[in-house]
Amino acid sequence: MIVDNAIYVDGRRAAEPSSLEETYEACRQRRGVAWIDLYKPTEKEFSSVAQELGLHPLAVEDAIRAHQRPRLERYGETLFVVLIPARYLDESETVEFSEVHVFVGEYFIVTVRHGEVSALGEVRRRLESEPELLRRGPRAILHAIMDRVVDAYGPVVEGLGTDIEEIEAEVFGGNARASRRIYELSREVVEFQRATRPLAGALERLAESHEHSIDPEARKYIRDIHAHVLRVTEQIESFRQMLSNVLIVNLTLVSVRQNDQTKKISAWAAILIVPTIITGIYGMNFERMPELTWTFGYPFALALMVSISLVLYVTFKRAEWL
Amino acid sequence: MIVDNAIYVDGRRAAEPSSLEETYEACRQRRGVAWIDLYKPTEKEFSSVAQELGLHPLAVEDAIRAHQRPRLERYGETLFVVLIPARYLDESETVEFSEVHVFVGEYFIVTVRHGEVSALGEVRRRLESEPELLRRGPRAILHAIMDRVVDAYGPVVEGLGTDIEEIEAEVFGGNARASRRIYELSREVVEFQRATRPLAGALERLAESHEHSIDPEARKYIRDIHAHVLRVTEQIESFRQMLSNVLIVNLTLVSVRQNDQTKKISAWAAILIVPTIITGIYGMNFERMPELTWTFGYPFALALMVSISLVLYVTFKRAEWL
Amino acid sequence: MIVDNAIYVDGRRAAEPSSLEETYEACRQRRGVAWIDLYKPTEKEFSSVAQELGLHPLAVEDAIRAHQRPRLERYGETLFVVLIPARYLDESETVEFSEVHVFVGEYFIVTVRHGEVSALGEVRRRLESEPELLRRGPRAILHAIMDRVVDAYGPVVEGLGTDIEEIEAEVFGGNARASRRIYELSREVVEFQRATRPLAGALERLAESHEHSIDPEARKYIRDIHAHVLRVTEQIESFRQMLSNVLIVNLTLVSVRQNDQTKKISAWAAILIVPTIITGIYGMNFERMPELTWTFGYPFALALMVSISLVLYVTFKRAEWL
Amino acid sequence: MIVDNAIYVDGRRAAEPSSLEETYEACRQRRGVAWIDLYKPTEKEFSSVAQELGLHPLAVEDAIRAHQRPRLERYGETLFVVLIPARYLDESETVEFSEVHVFVGEYFIVTVRHGEVSALGEVRRRLESEPELLRRGPRAILHAIMDRVVDAYGPVVEGLGTDIEEIEAEVFGGNARASRRIYELSREVVEFQRATRPLAGALERLAESHEHSIDPEARKYIRDIHAHVLRVTEQIESFRQMLSNVLIVNLTLVSVRQNDQTKKISAWAAILIVPTIITGIYGMNFERMPELTWTFGYPFALALMVSISLVLYVTFKRAEWL
Amino acid sequence: MIVDNAIYVDGRRAAEPSSLEETYEACRQRRGVAWIDLYKPTEKEFSSVAQELGLHPLAVEDAIRAHQRPRLERYGETLFVVLIPARYLDESETVEFSEVHVFVGEYFIVTVRHGEVSALGEVRRRLESEPELLRRGPRAILHAIMDRVVDAYGPVVEGLGTDIEEIEAEVFGGNARASRRIYELSREVVEFQRATRPLAGALERLAESHEHSIDPEARKYIRDIHAHVLRVTEQIESFRQMLSNVLIVNLTLVSVRQNDQTKKISAWAAILIVPTIITGIYGMNFERMPELTWTFGYPFALALMVSISLVLYVTFKRAEWL
Repeated sequence: MIVDNAIYVDGRRAAEPSSLEETYEACRQRRGVAWIDLYKPTEKEFSSVAQELGLHPLAVEDAIRAHQRPRLERYGETLFVVLIPARYLDESETVEFSEVHVFVGEYFIVTVRHGEVSALGEVRRRLESEPELLRRGPRAILHAIMDRVVDAYGPVVEGLGTDIEEIEAEVFGGNARASRRIYELSREVVEFQRATRPLAGALERLAESHEHSIDPEARKYIRDIHAHVLRVTEQIESFRQMLSNVLIVNLTLVSVRQNDQTKKISAWAAILIVPTIITGIYGMNFERMPELTWTFGYPFALALMVSISLVLYVTFKRAEWL
Repeated sequence: MIVDNAIYVDGRRAAEPSSLEETYEACRQRRGVAWIDLYKPTEKEFSSVAQELGLHPLAVEDAIRAHQRPRLERYGETLFVVLIPARYLDESETVEFSEVHVFVGEYFIVTVRHGEVSALGEVRRRLESEPELLRRGPRAILHAIMDRVVDAYGPVVEGLGTDIEEIEAEVFGGNARASRRIYELSREVVEFQRATRPLAGALERLAESHEHSIDPEARKYIRDIHAHVLRVTEQIESFRQMLSNVLIVNLTLVSVRQNDQTKKISAWAAILIVPTIITGIYGMNFERMPELTWTFGYPFALALMVSISLVLYVTFKRAEWL
Repeated sequence: MIVDNAIYVDGRRAAEPSSLEETYEACRQRRGVAWIDLYKPTEKEFSSVAQELGLHPLAVEDAIRAHQRPRLERYGETLFVVLIPARYLDESETVEFSEVHVFVGEYFIVTVRHGEVSALGEVRRRLESEPELLRRGPRAILHAIMDRVVDAYGPVVEGLGTDIEEIEAEVFGGNARASRRIYELSREVVEFQRATRPLAGALERLAESHEHSIDPEARKYIRDIHAHVLRVTEQIESFRQMLSNVLIVNLTLVSVRQNDQTKKISAWAAILIVPTIITGIYGMNFERMPELTWTFGYPFALALMVSISLVLYVTFKRAEWL
Repeated sequence: MIVDNAIYVDGRRAAEPSSLEETYEACRQRRGVAWIDLYKPTEKEFSSVAQELGLHPLAVEDAIRAHQRPRLERYGETLFVVLIPARYLDESETVEFSEVHVFVGEYFIVTVRHGEVSALGEVRRRLESEPELLRRGPRAILHAIMDRVVDAYGPVVEGLGTDIEEIEAEVFGGNARASRRIYELSREVVEFQRATRPLAGALERLAESHEHSIDPEARKYIRDIHAHVLRVTEQIESFRQMLSNVLIVNLTLVSVRQNDQTKKISAWAAILIVPTIITGIYGMNFERMPELTWTFGYPFALALMVSISLVLYVTFKRAEWL
Repeated sequence: MIVDNAIYVDGRRAAEPSSLEETYEACRQRRGVAWIDLYKPTEKEFSSVAQELGLHPLAVEDAIRAHQRPRLERYGETLFVVLIPARYLDESETVEFSEVHVFVGEYFIVTVRHGEVSALGEVRRRLESEPELLRRGPRAILHAIMDRVVDAYGPVVEGLGTDIEEIEAEVFGGNARASRRIYELSREVVEFQRATRPLAGALERLAESHEHSIDPEARKYIRDIHAHVLRVTEQIESFRQMLSNVLIVNLTLVSVRQNDQTKKISAWAAILIVPTIITGIYGMNFERMPELTWTFGYPFALALMVSISLVLYVTFKRAEWL
């Protein structure tokens, strides 16, 4: 599905071609920069774009199949970039991943989206309002997209951070069921790590490549994005460590709680065994048991049971077993 | 055992030599590209092939003995590649590994299979239907084989992913016996890691080698395969982390369940001790125990037992101990 | 907020310009070195400084937004450094992090603070008392700031070390609640690691860069700071390992304590069951039970209960179950 | 102790000198290649060899003291190699390590053994039967020794693999005592790792060194040995991971078994408490308890006890508590 | 405090200057090599040495403050080395660390000790008895000191190894209190790792530096020391792994022991509940209970209790619950 298809001349939206053919024509005549934005294209849809713009079949195959790792590959004149945008869903407290494939040529940029990434529309709008940026060509558009994707990792990191704090509260608040949430969170952290770590490496290689086509300004921009990705990966790594610790802490607290329970139960058992012994004693059939003939023998026995039990109760309460 | 033996001229299956001798002859005259496909050859069987095509004795020894790690070695003009294809067996939910050794020369390619790898036949059929690929020579065949092997890791990764989800369901569903499946799965993940990680390194070295014999197109192809292997190894690594977490979570849940059980048992003990105490009281031999002479003393005692027990039952039920 | 704004000529505080305009003027005429110190500047406040001194917009954006990782980036002639000073708060036994962004040009240095970092004022005072250092220019000021920040990590490491020792005492002293403190401490250690580890890498790159602007003396100074940061990161790493061990040890001790408790409880149960059995025996209704008719039958039974219980008590005491 | 001392000319055992002096003489005249094989030489014994052949004092000291890590060092013209052969002892199911130090010069090779390494004799016999190999000089002998040592790691890896499988069977078979064997095995795996990992690095450096003295054929041989060592180290690493998982699994299974036990015990407690309550009821002294006067009151009570207990037994059996 | 102060000419102790001034004078005239050995010098004491010999202020500051990590830094002509010698204290079974700072110039060597390092005196004595070594200059002295420090790690490694074996014995011998010793040992291992690992890196850089001042012989010596440090660090790493395993094993054994205890306690409970039930039965007040009127009813009941209890005891004993 074609989401958007426009030609930019001198940083301004010059034409909105009615068909892709017009776009190719514009590209061929180098009349400007074309930006074609596709959503989950079928093989057939995409093959025309690929052929016209000379995209490499391997990259095209990957872009159609999706499920790629974040990477950055050079195919002749064309740069192929895979990004994994992430979004934190507040309702379900989960992270949603999508995929954006970007082909960057000298006179065109093609973006292929898998999953909901409304951010691309935003990037286009922002760029259209800053013609001096758009004028720098397709590479500047790529950098703006990468910047946007990486910036959007921020709220995800924050969301996960809040989740971890909630889990800590649960764990220390005595919710033994926290195990499940810890596990699910650690699973998301592992997936997030997989989405961001390779990107850091790819950006570093890009920033340090001896390509002439990258002007120093763009290099600084890439380094800035790189620093932000590194910050994200380092925070994820620290989340991973904290979750791994919280798993052990939770296990320990479960054991501590079991100790407390055992103490409580034993205390009650001790309190309840005393009346049993006393009733046993006065149930013995000795001929000479003076208490049995006392007028208040029975109330005395009952009082004995209650009072010893009370003393024990207070004792255990003080020892914090109850 | 010779599985297949054919000569390709200009990308088409030109001859099916009746004996290996004819194949060698064709190779010597550089009449085309020979592809010899062997299955668990004996030392004797393989030695003729090796001698005729000038394969290096060390590589030959490794190919006969099998049990190699995935690797990629240059022996003079010949490239020696070891691949560990993997297959996910649905019935047993296990991963089956086999081994393919490939010798790539200028005019020949020899494949040696250990274990069932039907994929090679498929690769041959696909290549025979794409003469323009076959025409590029033995290296193109090697890349097609590597591509097929790496592509086949996909379903294995998916299978393992599904297994992990099943295990999660088991663990959180309270099946304490999950330990065994977690362990077995982690064992398979470790083995899979061993089969794929060295391949990533070997492909990276190949892609970055300054060999002239690799044309830029082939290099892009290798990089693509490399990216796929990396994706597989990263997912396996994340599986390893998740399984390691699931082990601790399972241990915690076992403890949580023990806590629940202890609570339940203690609640029942408390409920049952009350009748014991009451029977004890009315079993005492005091001369003056008014209840003993009541007409409804006995039913009263029974009712007392039942009602106190009931109150306790409801109390524990509300406290979620039962 | 402008904290301080001064111009240094030949190592001495030459002028205290009443406005930033005077400072820019001085810079332009290269009359000396300007040091502008800002506290949480608004975008508007900072944009004038940035424009006048030609700071790079990307670095400026990062400096205003804060929440950066420690790093060191070159933007043309200007060096951009992010530092994460840390302070150990004795009262709460926690580590407080702040952020300092430094822009170093040929004739100026701009420091942007986020959070309380009184250290910068101290650095200025020290430098003003050592004109020969100040004379070396903005780079020397940067090194002095980095040195101060890294030196201040020392007390934090000590504070954390003391905390770990306290926790060890708690754990081995039997405080099962130590889990929470272990976890909180490990969280701080992880954050501290995040604040210092990237700094080590940045300093190493700086020390080994082939820049001409760094004189050998400055290089030695950087290496010295680098060695100190490495010492800090190595100690933090060892803290991390120790805390991870202490988590397991704590878990083990919780289990050991449970064992001890179970023993104690069982011993008491055994001691209390004996009187129950004896009262049961003399409560049987056999016609011929000689003890029942003894004169001292009842005291004998009581004595029997007490003495067997005492024997058991002593036995368990000796076996260290009680 | 001199184990063997021979001179090889043109790949054949030319002379068996009666004393080391003759050997040195032959070396000096470059009449052939001398191979001196020593077993735990004393400092005195070895010093004559070292002086005559110009071995470096540092290497000599290490060779006498033993307890070295596997390594490969160049001392001028002489190469000094330390190998740690390993042997799997079936009876005790342990791994035995020994040590071989090899000095390789242009016209001599000196092997120093610490511990039982019968393999060296085997290598010599094999080489003497392949003169074309021996003819290549001392380096070829070194490679043959390294090959033999690395090949012998194979059975050790297999032995450890079998041990791990046995341990898995024990753990899942419910043998709680498996902890000790897991620990002992992990200890051996760690030691084995220490014996092989540095060797991989040393071989890699050797294979990639730009020495002219290594002919391409030898380089291929070294790469082959390197690949085998890598395979061993990767398997050991996977053993380490599996043992670490088995430790946790075992801990979990111990807890699971405790749960099962608690259930079983509690079920029996419940079954046994019922008769206690019934006897208590009929032990009460109410004047009007109709059952007490029934003819079959007593058998009725007994039957009641047995039948309720049976019902409970069946119930628990069905709930798999028993 | 000046421990020793001597001038060596041509490998022999030429003069023992009465004051440091004489030493400086000798150095200036290049009359020989001066070795000044200081113990915890005050800032004042050391500043004269530093100024005279041109030591770098940064290194001087570090040497006075101590608490450095092992490292090796070049300050112009002077080399600054920090070593962390270790000593195993048999009585307390702990490792004691000290610190040696070495400044090596062309005509002098200054050693600064923090903590008891008697080894330096030994090194001096050994060197004075080997003039050919001393003649090689200050670098040779440095290497001798490094060699001594690294050699002294050997006994520490052995001591820790013995401690680990003792702990294993304790753990498998059932001493639940082993946790504390495991933890303390792991703490020492972590500290030891911190003292040795950076040294390996520093020595490697030194051995591979392209300095002309290092003659090939010295380089071999450094490589030898490097190999020894590597051996130490690898062993420490294996200790760390073993201790981490022993922690889990100990935790498992604590659980196993709890299982055993629970079994034992439950068996006793079962044995003791039987008499309770029997006394209950004969304590029932049925009118027709034939046993009650038997002449030997009472002894029969007692015998029943004892015999059933005995049968249970034997049964549990066979099932290894007791």
